[in-house]
Amino acid sequence: MMPIAKSLKQGKRGILERLDAGEIVIGDGGFVFALEKRGYVKAGPWTPEATVEHPEAVRQLHREFLRAGSNVLQTFTFYASEDKLENRGNYVAEKITGQKVNEAACDIAREVANEGDALVAGGVSQTPSYLSCKDKAEVKAVFRKQLDIFTKKNVDFLIAEYFEHVEEAVWAVEVLKESGKPVAATMCIGPEGDMHGVPPGQCAVQLVKAGASIVGVNCHFDPDTVLETVKLMKEGLQAANLKAHLMSQPLAFHTPDCGKQGFIDLPEFPFGLEPRIITRWDVQKYARKAYDLGIRFIGGCCGFEPYHIRAIAEELAPERGFLPLASEKHGSWGNGLSMHTKPWVRARARKEYWENLKPASGRPYCPSMSKPDGWGVTKGARELMQQKEATTEQQLKELFQKQKF
Amino acid sequence: MMPIAKSLKQGKRGILERLDAGEIVIGDGGFVFALEKRGYVKAGPWTPEATVEHPEAVRQLHREFLRAGSNVLQTFTFYASEDKLENRGNYVAEKITGQKVNEAACDIAREVANEGDALVAGGVSQTPSYLSCKDKAEVKAVFRKQLDIFTKKNVDFLIAEYFEHVEEAVWAVEVLKESGKPVAATMCIGPEGDMHGVPPGQCAVQLVKAGASIVGVNCHFDPDTVLETVKLMKEGLQAANLKAHLMSQPLAFHTPDCGKQGFIDLPEFPFGLEPRIITRWDVQKYARKAYDLGIRFIGGCCGFEPYHIRAIAEELAPERGFLPLASEKHGSWGNGLSMHTKPWVRARARKEYWENLKPASGRPYCPSMSKPDGWGVTKGARELMQQKEATTEQQLKELFQKQKF
Amino acid sequence: MMPIAKSLKQGKRGILERLDAGEIVIGDGGFVFALEKRGYVKAGPWTPEATVEHPEAVRQLHREFLRAGSNVLQTFTFYASEDKLENRGNYVAEKITGQKVNEAACDIAREVANEGDALVAGGVSQTPSYLSCKDKAEVKAVFRKQLDIFTKKNVDFLIAEYFEHVEEAVWAVEVLKESGKPVAATMCIGPEGDMHGVPPGQCAVQLVKAGASIVGVNCHFDPDTVLETVKLMKEGLQAANLKAHLMSQPLAFHTPDCGKQGFIDLPEFPFGLEPRIITRWDVQKYARKAYDLGIRFIGGCCGFEPYHIRAIAEELAPERGFLPLASEKHGSWGNGLSMHTKPWVRARARKEYWENLKPASGRPYCPSMSKPDGWGVTKGARELMQQKEATTEQQLKELFQKQKF
Amino acid sequence: MMPIAKSLKQGKRGILERLDAGEIVIGDGGFVFALEKRGYVKAGPWTPEATVEHPEAVRQLHREFLRAGSNVLQTFTFYASEDKLENRGNYVAEKITGQKVNEAACDIAREVANEGDALVAGGVSQTPSYLSCKDKAEVKAVFRKQLDIFTKKNVDFLIAEYFEHVEEAVWAVEVLKESGKPVAATMCIGPEGDMHGVPPGQCAVQLVKAGASIVGVNCHFDPDTVLETVKLMKEGLQAANLKAHLMSQPLAFHTPDCGKQGFIDLPEFPFGLEPRIITRWDVQKYARKAYDLGIRFIGGCCGFEPYHIRAIAEELAPERGFLPLASEKHGSWGNGLSMHTKPWVRARARKEYWENLKPASGRPYCPSMSKPDGWGVTKGARELMQQKEATTEQQLKELFQKQKF
Repeated sequence: MMPIAKSLKQGKRGILERLDAGEIVIGDGGFVFALEKRGYVKAGPWTPEATVEHPEAVRQLHREFLRAGSNVLQTFTFYASEDKLENRGNYVAEKITGQKVNEAACDIAREVANEGDALVAGGVSQTPSYLSCKDKAEVKAVFRKQLDIFTKKNVDFLIAEYFEHVEEAVWAVEVLKESGKPVAATMCIGPEGDMHGVPPGQCAVQLVKAGASIVGVNCHFDPDTVLETVKLMKEGLQAANLKAHLMSQPLAFHTPDCGKQGFIDLPEFPFGLEPRIITRWDVQKYARKAYDLGIRFIGGCCGFEPYHIRAIAEELAPERGFLPLASEKHGSWGNGLSMHTKPWVRARARKEYWENLKPASGRPYCPSMSKPDGWGVTKGARELMQQKEATTEQQLKELFQKQKF
Repeated sequence: MMPIAKSLKQGKRGILERLDAGEIVIGDGGFVFALEKRGYVKAGPWTPEATVEHPEAVRQLHREFLRAGSNVLQTFTFYASEDKLENRGNYVAEKITGQKVNEAACDIAREVANEGDALVAGGVSQTPSYLSCKDKAEVKAVFRKQLDIFTKKNVDFLIAEYFEHVEEAVWAVEVLKESGKPVAATMCIGPEGDMHGVPPGQCAVQLVKAGASIVGVNCHFDPDTVLETVKLMKEGLQAANLKAHLMSQPLAFHTPDCGKQGFIDLPEFPFGLEPRIITRWDVQKYARKAYDLGIRFIGGCCGFEPYHIRAIAEELAPERGFLPLASEKHGSWGNGLSMHTKPWVRARARKEYWENLKPASGRPYCPSMSKPDGWGVTKGARELMQQKEATTEQQLKELFQKQKF
Repeated sequence: MMPIAKSLKQGKRGILERLDAGEIVIGDGGFVFALEKRGYVKAGPWTPEATVEHPEAVRQLHREFLRAGSNVLQTFTFYASEDKLENRGNYVAEKITGQKVNEAACDIAREVANEGDALVAGGVSQTPSYLSCKDKAEVKAVFRKQLDIFTKKNVDFLIAEYFEHVEEAVWAVEVLKESGKPVAATMCIGPEGDMHGVPPGQCAVQLVKAGASIVGVNCHFDPDTVLETVKLMKEGLQAANLKAHLMSQPLAFHTPDCGKQGFIDLPEFPFGLEPRIITRWDVQKYARKAYDLGIRFIGGCCGFEPYHIRAIAEELAPERGFLPLASEKHGSWGNGLSMHTKPWVRARARKEYWENLKPASGRPYCPSMSKPDGWGVTKGARELMQQKEATTEQQLKELFQKQKF
Repeated sequence: MMPIAKSLKQGKRGILERLDAGEIVIGDGGFVFALEKRGYVKAGPWTPEATVEHPEAVRQLHREFLRAGSNVLQTFTFYASEDKLENRGNYVAEKITGQKVNEAACDIAREVANEGDALVAGGVSQTPSYLSCKDKAEVKAVFRKQLDIFTKKNVDFLIAEYFEHVEEAVWAVEVLKESGKPVAATMCIGPEGDMHGVPPGQCAVQLVKAGASIVGVNCHFDPDTVLETVKLMKEGLQAANLKAHLMSQPLAFHTPDCGKQGFIDLPEFPFGLEPRIITRWDVQKYARKAYDLGIRFIGGCCGFEPYHIRAIAEELAPERGFLPLASEKHGSWGNGLSMHTKPWVRARARKEYWENLKPASGRPYCPSMSKPDGWGVTKGARELMQQKEATTEQQLKELFQKQKF
């Protein structure tokens, strides 16, 4: 039997040191969705003031991912840029400044990372400033504020994630590179490319040229779609004779039916996604497929709970030589059922069973797919809205009033 | 707007004091399933050694339920009888005795309960001793061991839950009543009754006669089926001129297709249940229906996460006059989306939308219902297996060998 | 290999002679639905003026059922009572009287029956007169008009079918018995019984006491539900120590989700039922189950096409000793595929394949079940409407106006 | 209200005369599937010996399509080439020669066409000779035999249909052009092109260059996929500066899940396709979409019953100025229900209702999509099999033996 990692501390080596050596690096899962269900993040704003308000809850989730096998703990700084916190977080008490949120996020991540051999990655994501047509200098200033904290707190490396426009992602990478630390960059795009129509291959090329050592895709789409998109990035880099490590952090939801902008347009977003949640077996298929595609930084995004991350670590245990700590509480491929009193439940304690199961929803009145919303909107307006120019609240309002749903 | 409960501490009154006054008491959710996903419980044994091994994880889950609105924190002592821990928990370190597990469970629950006004309920559940044909005295001795700890730790009241046979449940109630504390009793049965064929109405009558002040159903079935069963209990009590408070703690999975023994026989149990997870809106319908049926102790079982419990508290906020603490991070009926940049997402910020949504699974190759397993087993063998006599491992093995699946 | 019936003419014996001898009698399929799709019957009125307008189309359909194995050809006189033709058939040319429609129906059925050994059954069905509160004498007069023609044309026996109220069905049987010919009676009810709440068992008893030699169920429900209802009839007769032959003619649509009044309340009725159409393999299961239940007059109703009837004859060929004529164009259990060029199509030429296939709908945006309509109507109004008293157009209109959908 | 065509005879004009004038020409539906259900065609061989054995059945189906609005009656000569009849029709009596089958087909089609203003089209389809690697001369000789009969019987024009390889289709067109009559050519391909990988646009170009005046797609795919493919043909012709009329005759089955070779690889083919059958409302959407795409020869293939063809004629009645004869038995958009006694059924008598209905399957244990078969075959073998070289029975057998399914 595969040994379980005896200790979490194994002498820390940097992210590039690991990837360059051909090691598999396992990312963590989705904080905003997991903490929303636990009662610490509000859907809508999705801001991370919990790092200040309820550090014990954030710490516990980090710890669960660490136990599940994560080698990287991202600071819980998603949507923690000051413009975002101001814009959306007006329900947050005034004393909780962006600085406090970011600092606390770093401290918590570091505290838990030190319980094992995980690295801390400081994370930035797309900004309202970019969508409101602020210029390059203004947008960069927003990223730089977060970077200052990451530098002060001495995170191990940096991730620019969840960008819909490669232009903004490139600006972010350029800022993060100022620190001298390794930078990873992931976009929340599908095979059709970014919101300005830049295809995934070109996005990857621009990001690497800007300084990213690791590129890939996170959020917005299910594992299959994310891998399809990373594959296009890989091909784009090859065609340009560029080298970079590949990274994938997809949703833990099945979204074969979503459009260019991903799961946000699905009618089930964000409060009816339950029937779409992927199983641990779906994750094992994803991990294997990602590995076969050459991706070595493999994690998850919204919907990925600790047991999903563990499934990555279990699938790739043969390659890595060990299981994660949390596998002490999990029988591989259902073998925890081998002692069940009912023979038909014992019969589920095998790989073939779970690999081939087509799980029922128990919802006979529901369909299997849904049409993304926004189809009633005229095409022109829709395209406008998908561009930067149309996304000020006022413009959207005007566009919206011109049409009926 | 509905006020959020200012403080969690409101002068504790006992469970019967509350129920007799007509108050709604909100239970907590499912520990074994939630902690399995977090990496602290092993599916198969389902034992709660985490109270000793990882108290911080158990504490955090209690705290989340408290924030979500739970008025009762059950000690995490499911399957913590000594015979069960020995039988299934052989992978647990020897030093983790049943006594330690139960004591730690009480301490953790009390610690968190004191952060608010929640009550601590000591819980016992069905035993392997009963299934192995141990006699009444032996089975009662098992319960008494746990009760001794609950008494020493001075829990507020007691719950006998997850019983498939009313005979054993009655024995449990009789033991728990020795403490002088109020006793609640729930069975994991459906409308067809217990595994010996005793209908729900008769089960309720026997439990109340044995001393239970609160009776109902937990686990094994979805909310609709559980409520249908509690209704039969209510009618049984009325017919017998008995009075008791009613309680329901269903699964958070849709299981319209399961048989007499509930979700365990479904092919998706326990590692492919994701598409069956109920939404918060399903929970609100459940809470309303339970209330209308006269149930006043309303909680959840396996699958119920903190946000599901919050949904009970939000649905019944008009009756209770306040929202739970965790509602500071939740816009009722999706109103957290009212500021979204996309008009079609903003259009989801209303009750009618979520009430009427038929969420898609994103799984076009999967059916909506499945046949419970065990159908390939001959009827005679199946019936035998469902009875006490057949459940020794050896007998099962023999039966199993006689038939093919 | 099973021989195909060499000739269709085998010396005609009467319906009771056959059934008393223990033979299986195969009924025919659904005329109004089949001819609606062929362009000769209008959905809504569902009247059979095609017997006069397009006799060749009616003749051809009879012939196809005969070839498929039908031993009984019902005159196409469904809804051919004069009150119905007046009430609904006002789009029919005036010269097409009820007398002409009924006479032509008899002539066509006899002409085709003579091509083989099939019997001709004159059929009557429920009347608008009954629903409009006409008295017993008036309603009986309506049936007697049709019976006069059946007597003159000398049909072999009589069927009273498609009755929602046993009271009216009894009146019909009493009239038909005046002819001295054998009478069969089927009701379009489910396990909940007739529209006045008379359970299936009691319906059967009343029909047999009124003179019916054969009783059963037709239309409104799928095979499983129809067989469940016939089983209740059988038990009712046994309890009353009465003897009668049993008959079933279900829909060829899956309707697990319909309410007490059957498929008419399903949102798909009548123009969106395609995804519910049963396969020939579903029919074989139905035929076997009907036979095992002791039913010996086995046919179909709306949706049953010739190939569905052939499937009954093929399933029961071992018991009958021969296949129907149309089996010269059908390989049992798909064996017509055994010469296909693609190996994976050849692999479908076997019983296990088709027996176990769970056919996909190709409709990922559609659910598998739907709620019957009329749920928005208040319960009181709905019940009123389901009773005779409420069904005058004026009353319905008033009720309807009182509520919103 | 739209007038119904008073008479079927309106002075016949040729196919090109009509199309050149911008008229809509409505094709007929699928003979082999319809007659298989009626008991006259055997699934597997799919040969049309019924023209000799049961001319009344073939005549009746032609007549139903004529009444439904078909302007073209195709001779029922699908798979009636001599090599096919010999190859597959060995169960057919010897005296039924290919000549007799083809002649009878012409006579029957002409007889019915003369009852209205429909044109008779002689049809040829792909041959076993081509698949067995016979050379161009041999294959052409097979087509020429059928053409001789079409010429003698003086059909109005010719259709080469159901070709998987454009090479063979071109040969067929070249032969048919020898007659001097207009030639239409349709391939049974999807957007991926023919079995040798020739894209639809190039197929269209080759067919027009060979002499076809009308090109398009028939069979193998659902309406959406067929229209997508015809669109590619249209674009190919435009790019090549070629002109031709467009034609579409899709399946009446939803097949979003099929692969390159269409519905034959779906596990439901051919005996479990019922849940995939399209409704009349699906057909109306198809007709409108085809018209908007510029297609003017609009018909159906396998699965299209007379009521499906009528739906084309009803959808395009505003453009054509009249309804088909069979509309005397059909209320447009369900208005035949406007007199129903139940208000909720009356409420279905409107366009919006049927346009938006998502019909349920009544099959909760079935999925909505299925994986095409043949996936277990290694890719290399599969590709081989899809090419001409591999399709001799012996080669297939060998390939098949090398792999397991």
